[in-house]
Amino acid sequence: MLLHLSTWAEVETYLRQHQGIIIPIGSTEQHGPNGLIGTDAICADAIAKGVGDSTDAMVAPSINVGMALHHTGFPGTISLRPSTMILYIVDYLSSLAKAGFSHFYFINGHGGNISTLKAAFAEVYDRLAGLNLPHAADVKCQIGNWFMCRSVYQLAKELYGKKEGSHATPSEVAVTQYIFPEAIKKVSFPEDAPSGFPIYGAANFRSCYPDGRMGSNPALATPEHGKRLYDLAVKDLSNSYLEFIHGKQS
Amino acid sequence: MLLHLSTWAEVETYLRQHQGIIIPIGSTEQHGPNGLIGTDAICADAIAKGVGDSTDAMVAPSINVGMALHHTGFPGTISLRPSTMILYIVDYLSSLAKAGFSHFYFINGHGGNISTLKAAFAEVYDRLAGLNLPHAADVKCQIGNWFMCRSVYQLAKELYGKKEGSHATPSEVAVTQYIFPEAIKKVSFPEDAPSGFPIYGAANFRSCYPDGRMGSNPALATPEHGKRLYDLAVKDLSNSYLEFIHGKQS
Amino acid sequence: MLLHLSTWAEVETYLRQHQGIIIPIGSTEQHGPNGLIGTDAICADAIAKGVGDSTDAMVAPSINVGMALHHTGFPGTISLRPSTMILYIVDYLSSLAKAGFSHFYFINGHGGNISTLKAAFAEVYDRLAGLNLPHAADVKCQIGNWFMCRSVYQLAKELYGKKEGSHATPSEVAVTQYIFPEAIKKVSFPEDAPSGFPIYGAANFRSCYPDGRMGSNPALATPEHGKRLYDLAVKDLSNSYLEFIHGKQS
Amino acid sequence: MLLHLSTWAEVETYLRQHQGIIIPIGSTEQHGPNGLIGTDAICADAIAKGVGDSTDAMVAPSINVGMALHHTGFPGTISLRPSTMILYIVDYLSSLAKAGFSHFYFINGHGGNISTLKAAFAEVYDRLAGLNLPHAADVKCQIGNWFMCRSVYQLAKELYGKKEGSHATPSEVAVTQYIFPEAIKKVSFPEDAPSGFPIYGAANFRSCYPDGRMGSNPALATPEHGKRLYDLAVKDLSNSYLEFIHGKQS
Amino acid sequence: MLLHLSTWAEVETYLRQHQGIIIPIGSTEQHGPNGLIGTDAICADAIAKGVGDSTDAMVAPSINVGMALHHTGFPGTISLRPSTMILYIVDYLSSLAKAGFSHFYFINGHGGNISTLKAAFAEVYDRLAGLNLPHAADVKCQIGNWFMCRSVYQLAKELYGKKEGSHATPSEVAVTQYIFPEAIKKVSFPEDAPSGFPIYGAANFRSCYPDGRMGSNPALATPEHGKRLYDLAVKDLSNSYLEFIHGKQS
Amino acid sequence: MLLHLSTWAEVETYLRQHQGIIIPIGSTEQHGPNGLIGTDAICADAIAKGVGDSTDAMVAPSINVGMALHHTGFPGTISLRPSTMILYIVDYLSSLAKAGFSHFYFINGHGGNISTLKAAFAEVYDRLAGLNLPHAADVKCQIGNWFMCRSVYQLAKELYGKKEGSHATPSEVAVTQYIFPEAIKKVSFPEDAPSGFPIYGAANFRSCYPDGRMGSNPALATPEHGKRLYDLAVKDLSNSYLEFIHGKQS
Repeated sequence: MLLHLSTWAEVETYLRQHQGIIIPIGSTEQHGPNGLIGTDAICADAIAKGVGDSTDAMVAPSINVGMALHHTGFPGTISLRPSTMILYIVDYLSSLAKAGFSHFYFINGHGGNISTLKAAFAEVYDRLAGLNLPHAADVKCQIGNWFMCRSVYQLAKELYGKKEGSHATPSEVAVTQYIFPEAIKKVSFPEDAPSGFPIYGAANFRSCYPDGRMGSNPALATPEHGKRLYDLAVKDLSNSYLEFIHGKQS
Repeated sequence: MLLHLSTWAEVETYLRQHQGIIIPIGSTEQHGPNGLIGTDAICADAIAKGVGDSTDAMVAPSINVGMALHHTGFPGTISLRPSTMILYIVDYLSSLAKAGFSHFYFINGHGGNISTLKAAFAEVYDRLAGLNLPHAADVKCQIGNWFMCRSVYQLAKELYGKKEGSHATPSEVAVTQYIFPEAIKKVSFPEDAPSGFPIYGAANFRSCYPDGRMGSNPALATPEHGKRLYDLAVKDLSNSYLEFIHGKQS
Repeated sequence: MLLHLSTWAEVETYLRQHQGIIIPIGSTEQHGPNGLIGTDAICADAIAKGVGDSTDAMVAPSINVGMALHHTGFPGTISLRPSTMILYIVDYLSSLAKAGFSHFYFINGHGGNISTLKAAFAEVYDRLAGLNLPHAADVKCQIGNWFMCRSVYQLAKELYGKKEGSHATPSEVAVTQYIFPEAIKKVSFPEDAPSGFPIYGAANFRSCYPDGRMGSNPALATPEHGKRLYDLAVKDLSNSYLEFIHGKQS
Repeated sequence: MLLHLSTWAEVETYLRQHQGIIIPIGSTEQHGPNGLIGTDAICADAIAKGVGDSTDAMVAPSINVGMALHHTGFPGTISLRPSTMILYIVDYLSSLAKAGFSHFYFINGHGGNISTLKAAFAEVYDRLAGLNLPHAADVKCQIGNWFMCRSVYQLAKELYGKKEGSHATPSEVAVTQYIFPEAIKKVSFPEDAPSGFPIYGAANFRSCYPDGRMGSNPALATPEHGKRLYDLAVKDLSNSYLEFIHGKQS
Repeated sequence: MLLHLSTWAEVETYLRQHQGIIIPIGSTEQHGPNGLIGTDAICADAIAKGVGDSTDAMVAPSINVGMALHHTGFPGTISLRPSTMILYIVDYLSSLAKAGFSHFYFINGHGGNISTLKAAFAEVYDRLAGLNLPHAADVKCQIGNWFMCRSVYQLAKELYGKKEGSHATPSEVAVTQYIFPEAIKKVSFPEDAPSGFPIYGAANFRSCYPDGRMGSNPALATPEHGKRLYDLAVKDLSNSYLEFIHGKQS
Repeated sequence: MLLHLSTWAEVETYLRQHQGIIIPIGSTEQHGPNGLIGTDAICADAIAKGVGDSTDAMVAPSINVGMALHHTGFPGTISLRPSTMILYIVDYLSSLAKAGFSHFYFINGHGGNISTLKAAFAEVYDRLAGLNLPHAADVKCQIGNWFMCRSVYQLAKELYGKKEGSHATPSEVAVTQYIFPEAIKKVSFPEDAPSGFPIYGAANFRSCYPDGRMGSNPALATPEHGKRLYDLAVKDLSNSYLEFIHGKQS
């Protein structure tokens, strides 16, 4: 059930029985020589829809721009500053919380979002407490990183070994190839990419990682791999979502 | 050419010959008894892709949450505060401006975004001037509201007369029916809706407009109308975009 | 009744029977070769006092600095950033709302303020709702642009035709000549001024409009015109204020 | 020379020989049973004009709303939060500094502004240094509190002794009576007012000082006193301004 | 009783009988040729502990970075911008106020903090009122500047006369020598230092005061002086704290 | 070498050969029935000094208040909001970066700081790039969490097994007992504490973890354990710091 394809009355009905919502969050950033700039948003969005289908949960509109300042040395990258992203998340969740939602499950496609998202959650709890919302104390946020699901991780290692790398990975490229086969890029590039440099600012990042890859070889990606990874991610995150909704309570 | 389906190298190539980019901006807000919560984003996104195709312009990822505080009395609405939206736009455009883009053309699906967007543009010019970007003085932003295109407006009046109203209009609902025929809602509701109350805060809005419509009868919408409206909007905004890029210069 | 010439006890008395207040808002910005930098504030202030007199409404202190970033290429211009102006308006109105005012009618002298003011209103409604003020849901803001009153517009066209232009207009200069005859400037400048360039950043504005005028010939202004324009504005906006206070309610 | 009654070209000419500007700053706040809400702004504005006349300095538009949160328990008071006021001052001075002004002399009518103003000055120096303005290192701000001029203080003590008090003082009321004799209020109130409570929040302030006075008896004020106080303030602050402009330099 | 050496249960117990807390605040900034960068924090921290001991008051963790932008031309200085410091103080005091503390007594070691602290207090009162805390109206903040205690001031004048100066003073250096005798610096420098230049931005400050001293001769400092000054400060501020807690109430 | 016990000239000398600095960061928050509220700051501060000694690195003043909003249900906890903490870190590091420092190594005592710190680092890189500092591209930040050092973790598991828990752990309590033996608390409490509830807002946290412990039994802590843990942390983080300074470079 997609929020943006629902009417407000359908949302009102949903809220009589549910308080949870799935929020896909990605990024708009360089993904190496053959990866799409929208990779992280595409993966998060597709997987979130799959999880929504399998759990009958509402899925909110995709957050397609995140925290990618370190990639802004490459054209096409769009990033929020962390301080802006915190305000964005606060406003986004406050709107939903005022309407009665209380359990916010982010399906995340970008490692760089995690810290700022977690910071934002703390800010959200505090803000909502200050607004004296009746159910402010029930508000809970959680992140499900599809690329860190155990089964996804294992398959990626099996398929690509060390060539999975840590950015512009064959696994995420594969998922986008499965979702958008018409956008598969034919580009040649060296098999090896630098790895092991920590991430600092944008200029430093580009000098360490000249074509944007971090140790990965995304030429190994195929749409078939993508389907397998996608299916695993949907399955794992569906379980995770249901645990979040029905899990251990104080 | 969609930014999120491009690689960074394709963006780099594009920037050698172009400095313009199209940015769809919508909203996530109630649209009456049969309108989708994503109406404004769906319309803006689809029309922007059409304009991008017809003008060979790059289209950035859709901004699907805007300024809809006055609709937050209805569940499912998600809104930024204007001060947050200004920061969001500043970050979004700064990222692109640093990469070399200078002409930002927003295809907008929501009247409530206009004031905050214009305020944000002023803030963007000032911020970029302060960063000493080489081409800061060339940065230009413009809004194209698809629902205010002359041809669109005329067809809407012809099809719906006064029943077009000013929110949850049959014309915008029609465009979403054309784009997402699978999400056409069968709901019955009275033909008439209140109109003429000015827009203030969220509680006031809901008390004035109990089902979310402002004077409109969106039961009149059909997917066929939607296609005609869509085609007119794409044509008008394509011309407008090209004028913006090649138009009168100081 | 001017707030700044009242005691707090007089305000308390006023609030027993009224909840409305008139707030003049102008700008401090270049107004071409013979226009005063304070033009927009002078006009708004004088007209607001006239409206206050004719409607027995309280008039708040003039906001004399607004959103004029695009004029900051000319010395003497002072501007807030939109994000600052939003905070300013939020604080200004929150102070008055806490005291019991609920209807805020801005008499505005500067087109460049409109977008940011409207954005600020949305932020105000949201902030006041969060403060749990008893009458937060009654708070209403409206803008009356004196230069857009129908009667004012018609007289300006009749007197100046196309030479009215859109900035540093003879009509606004005329009103300042009526208010401050001692500050009428004798300066010669060409009859024609550029027009038709959209407004972007400050550097671009000055290169498009080298002496600050936008298509206007303010040499045509006279204090007598000013009086006629002033009288029309006061009359129209007095009606508009009373409609705002007593008008259609939900 | 009043900025708001000048053209931008006159400002440009002024800047060829001067870099100083006088900025009146007051407040909009309760001033006891017979004091005007605009007292602080009225005094600052009038005295600033006098100083401008006697020193040939440019006088900027009056800042009529300041930091008066502790007075917001009384209706009619309008206050900025300190954080907002800092941004306001930063924007105000940045506009002028970009045009070439470097010496900012505030003539202040409200003790409650002093701390926030000083904080704002530090923020201004830092911001301007970050903008790489050529003359950023020359930017200097100073406050002249008219009510703390030695000669003013002495006359107030001579005229009123302990009845001068520390808010809603007869001396400031006298100056407003001199400037606006038509707004002299005939109100009776007890001679004595509480004094000696420190200033904390708004609710506390009103409970300590029920009619707004702090130890003063403003019934003693006369317009004649006002003229004498005004003349002394103008003379003292004119000297202070000239010292600021021509004074000890590093 | 030091907050950081207490358990939360001990704090809970304390709050049953007390609502006051002492907060040491210093700065991290240059203190001339032989003064420690931590001088202001060291003095505030030590004196606050002494006052806490003598009054049985809780002492909060030291705020060791304050508003020292004007010293940032010297390496080692760390400063908050005033706008950041206001937020910091608001968060710091809000945390304590929510737990039940209401009387906040700052023992301050740095003149440059005073304005921003006072601005922050106003912001705190306003914020807490907005949160509807039960005891928001009782919240009170006060600053005790140890170096401005009458007895301290008198002894400093007696010991050093004019050589006390106004920054990097022998009296504050003496207190640090008493607290950290192992960190006494043997450095030679001229007896005289410039004085009398007002404080503006960081570049200006360093050009006026090349070695960081403002008219002082801190070579005169001894640990024995430090002990005497420390004892006087503790005694005076202990009285001041008790007056604050038990003093005149509305 | 402690920054706060140095003179500015000593810092200037240090900067001729070093660009690195160690910054201890802790928190002021409840640490269960026998843990000190200052635990995280005490540990970070002491270990940072040890690392500074063993590596000849400068150690900056301790940041003793961090992100602990989820602990604010317990009295004595003081927390910044994440958005405030980002500004604080930006200002702190900007001051040092302007002076020539470029490598910022945080020794962190609180897991709850990590996300906000990482978010702040991204904001710092972006801000400094905007200021056009010559060495902005060299600025690098890293976090060393003493409690996550491999050797520390192993010893904690060996000493306490599952009773280490995840907040108010015996290992951190042990370190504070080693540092402040005079503040060892004799309190009895049950051996077992709840565990496994995720962390959300402050009210939820306290209802899940009524005495503040998360699965730990800090009664097991001894000062001797503390010394062993301290020594291991200093050794590991000293290596980590040197790798950071001399490590793999682009």
